[in-house]
Amino acid sequence: MSEPGTYVEKSFKRDTNYITTRITADGRDGFPVEADRYRLVVARACPWANRAIIVRRLLGLEDALSMGICGPTHDKRSWTFDLDPGGLDPVLKIPRIQDAYFKRDPEYPRGITVPAIVDVPTGAVVTNDFKQITVDLETQWRDFHREGAPDLYPDALADEIESVSEPIYRYVNNGVYRCGFAGTQDAYDKAYRRLWENLDLLEERLSTRRYLVGDHITEADVRLFTTLVRFDPVYHGHFKCNRSKLIEMPALWGYARDLFQTPGFGDTVDFTHIKRHYYVVHTDVNPTGVVPLGPSLENWATPHGREALGGTPFGDGTPPGPPREVVPPEHNPVLALLAR
Amino acid sequence: MSEPGTYVEKSFKRDTNYITTRITADGRDGFPVEADRYRLVVARACPWANRAIIVRRLLGLEDALSMGICGPTHDKRSWTFDLDPGGLDPVLKIPRIQDAYFKRDPEYPRGITVPAIVDVPTGAVVTNDFKQITVDLETQWRDFHREGAPDLYPDALADEIESVSEPIYRYVNNGVYRCGFAGTQDAYDKAYRRLWENLDLLEERLSTRRYLVGDHITEADVRLFTTLVRFDPVYHGHFKCNRSKLIEMPALWGYARDLFQTPGFGDTVDFTHIKRHYYVVHTDVNPTGVVPLGPSLENWATPHGREALGGTPFGDGTPPGPPREVVPPEHNPVLALLAR
Repeated sequence: MSEPGTYVEKSFKRDTNYITTRITADGRDGFPVEADRYRLVVARACPWANRAIIVRRLLGLEDALSMGICGPTHDKRSWTFDLDPGGLDPVLKIPRIQDAYFKRDPEYPRGITVPAIVDVPTGAVVTNDFKQITVDLETQWRDFHREGAPDLYPDALADEIESVSEPIYRYVNNGVYRCGFAGTQDAYDKAYRRLWENLDLLEERLSTRRYLVGDHITEADVRLFTTLVRFDPVYHGHFKCNRSKLIEMPALWGYARDLFQTPGFGDTVDFTHIKRHYYVVHTDVNPTGVVPLGPSLENWATPHGREALGGTPFGDGTPPGPPREVVPPEHNPVLALLAR
Repeated sequence: MSEPGTYVEKSFKRDTNYITTRITADGRDGFPVEADRYRLVVARACPWANRAIIVRRLLGLEDALSMGICGPTHDKRSWTFDLDPGGLDPVLKIPRIQDAYFKRDPEYPRGITVPAIVDVPTGAVVTNDFKQITVDLETQWRDFHREGAPDLYPDALADEIESVSEPIYRYVNNGVYRCGFAGTQDAYDKAYRRLWENLDLLEERLSTRRYLVGDHITEADVRLFTTLVRFDPVYHGHFKCNRSKLIEMPALWGYARDLFQTPGFGDTVDFTHIKRHYYVVHTDVNPTGVVPLGPSLENWATPHGREALGGTPFGDGTPPGPPREVVPPEHNPVLALLAR
């Protein structure tokens, strides 16, 4: 996303009116699951888009669903394809994802966000409803999952995934933004307290179990991971979420490293894009646009010891192969350490 | 200080043209050391003033040299006595330290900084040369030192104190400001690299010795301490000195806690003033003025184990008694933990 939202008494309130059209197996909204028809548009910087990148990769949907990648920084008109030759997405042939929103609705009035899925034949955004996008990749696109793909959203666990995720979304995933975008001390204080109450609860939960729900990786872990991996590089300082660093919370830090070191997680993370995005785009928080050189990242490659808690990442499934779209090694120095 | 300085190609350059009149035992500049004549004006927020607060207290100069304390925040006209009843310093009867600068020179053109020493009879600033102030308290005011006062600036160690302190001043004490006030990525990158090079050298030096110079506390330790104690609460996030937190550097963190827990150091530290000062005054770095609630500070009270390196804080001397001017307990939660 590009953090569209409003301020209610100087508290940041995210605009959650997404385009809720769904791509489903039965095509009930007019958009049936189909190979080679849709394009997932993401930015590696964005935690909400990062979820979709991870899920697509864990499930092996690369052949069925192509992916366009926006650069880390943008202006008021939001994300651009500045990483692509000529600044145009090679499939959609547009310079800005807003062009696909305007194809859908020339007067599109809300936030221009990623992730978005575009219908390639018409060039129009089908959906930008980030919570539904990953769940639909997990449940509606099953015909196109790779062999050995994990079940990230098992029917039997769906309710627990959603109930665990709800306060995580409110107070952690979005809570860090509420801290960072707070316009008053009071709004910040409230968001900070809620954030740490919930991180403390998660620290406790994860001290006895390897994953958030069940014995394997699920959608709930994907949702938490993309916030945790941004925590020390961005949220700790830039958003003033500074009671402690993630590395000071043993269970959460072990959990985050465990996921990072699992194929499909850390190999989607572009720390350079992440830092550039937040520190350059939010000129109201960081007027100079200077991007910090820290923190050290090598510690992401250290042993986490979480195997002792039982559970296996992929259940009856298998890890994904090497990534199709590769993060530049200099943007993620941890990967080279892990490859040794 | 209030960070007077200029920008040379967007690098912060501190204005180091201080008023260099000295108060000496022989009165060579017209200002002889004398009890009850001068007033040291400080702000607990300021690392440069904090040095003088510590030295005055370690040496037991409270009876000879009174102290006025400015509040943590200020406007373009610099530090005020807003903590005092009626907003007036009870001795100088002025609302702002600038008034004492203008008594000295009605056209005073440079930074209005603390620490400053004011000649009470005339109400005029004698000196604001922070490096000389502490050395003169240590060497010129010996007649008024308490019994058992440590020698913080022994003749035999003076050269080593200055040579060790020089790069610390340039790249650490002032280096954090050069990171935080950098107007360009390049200026920041340079300052950051120098800062960490020098912190790494200090980490190494302090891994085998308890104090920077000799076997006891000296002026060199005072100079480094006031930067270290501000590191995680302010410089790490606000000034983007974020390769790691101080607590991630074992020798420096042990050293900082050792000093903090030594009477005369931690009991001069007002974390509330420190955080309010930087986050509220630097609107160009932190436009909202929101003050972070973190970091946790209880870890300052944990055992440091530095006794094993030998040396003793006060040599043949003794620790100072309880502080005359007390930091409000809610502004320094560590003190209550240490008192248990």
